[in-house]
Amino acid sequence: MHIEQARFEEPVLKRNDEVAAQNRRFFLERGIFCVNLMGAPGAGKTTLLERLIPLLTPHVSVAVVEGDIAGDDDARRITACGVPVQQTNTYGACHLLAEQVAHAVDHLTQQSEFGLLFIENVGNLVCPAEFDLGEALRFVVYSATEGADKPRKYPLMFMRAGLVALNKADIAGAAGVEMADLRRSVAQVNPAAAVFTISAAKGDGVDDVAQWLLQRMEAFRG
Amino acid sequence: MHIEQARFEEPVLKRNDEVAAQNRRFFLERGIFCVNLMGAPGAGKTTLLERLIPLLTPHVSVAVVEGDIAGDDDARRITACGVPVQQTNTYGACHLLAEQVAHAVDHLTQQSEFGLLFIENVGNLVCPAEFDLGEALRFVVYSATEGADKPRKYPLMFMRAGLVALNKADIAGAAGVEMADLRRSVAQVNPAAAVFTISAAKGDGVDDVAQWLLQRMEAFRG
Repeated sequence: MHIEQARFEEPVLKRNDEVAAQNRRFFLERGIFCVNLMGAPGAGKTTLLERLIPLLTPHVSVAVVEGDIAGDDDARRITACGVPVQQTNTYGACHLLAEQVAHAVDHLTQQSEFGLLFIENVGNLVCPAEFDLGEALRFVVYSATEGADKPRKYPLMFMRAGLVALNKADIAGAAGVEMADLRRSVAQVNPAAAVFTISAAKGDGVDDVAQWLLQRMEAFRG
Repeated sequence: MHIEQARFEEPVLKRNDEVAAQNRRFFLERGIFCVNLMGAPGAGKTTLLERLIPLLTPHVSVAVVEGDIAGDDDARRITACGVPVQQTNTYGACHLLAEQVAHAVDHLTQQSEFGLLFIENVGNLVCPAEFDLGEALRFVVYSATEGADKPRKYPLMFMRAGLVALNKADIAGAAGVEMADLRRSVAQVNPAAAVFTISAAKGDGVDDVAQWLLQRMEAFRG
């Protein structure tokens, strides 16, 4: 993917939007369905990917960009799933930029062909929501144990999501969280999102998420 | 709705986002499901509202904010549907601002109570997409006769929509537009949106849109 030299006089968000638009065109031209996977640290993003990938690979070639402030723990876990992974470290930054994704995708396309790309964003329920990466779909994983009120308190990430997985549903009750309250909270900020209740650790509900993703990928490809 | 004095030294978008957040809280606290209805001039926004309102009013009290650059033609059409309408003229501006919505809603709440608010934005497929009004849902009406490629060419409005109505489907073929191509075009920029094929003029498909809106409104209220 060709990236113009960064023009540092421009505001970060405007520059990011331009590169995101380039990424989006790149993905569209190649029929790559790109999913920006976001959520707070510990929400279960990597665990969910470990569950989803084996359900998806019979239907489509999957690749993953792993965004982390530091380290490659998650990338090693996903590599063990047998799909190409590109690690991207932000060295302190609290979210990925479109340009980092462009470079990571450059590396990935040199080694393999794929039709479904997951970008696992930096664990953060706030900042990544402000940065378009060129994805077709924003997928938010939320840990139900963190309370039913958070979608209303941190609305932007939920507002921009097409897909929301409410994870750790199996232990939400033990944390005093009513799933019905949490679902309402999501619907209050984004009544149109597809919402699934899951336990990534146990695998509950993950098949429904996989089926939904495959169906939406087919619509994307037409 | 209390609105702080505008601080003109701030960028327009930042100020708008702040007022939009105030609007959103106002709507949430009062259980008002707010729908930002957008689309190009002539897409059929007002005609669709004329069809939708009688299907919705048996279930919920409806009010409408009519945004127009000039005139009150649309407001008079909606008034004839028997629901409260507040006209807002932008005097040249190509989109509504959250502050204009706040003032319009102030007027509406003084005269009536309502649970579903439509904001009919200025006819424009581009600019309104950049301005949050505090809505729970963005609803894009697109005239299928304008071509299957436009969602890809004007992606932001479609990317941010939860609901898309592809209008004038009955005459799209006569304009040389394949509905399957148009649906794919929407899915390429927003694979998660709910998409309905309708003819507002004939009423085809409008009942499905009304049912979807009522169901999402119930989820919003919990």
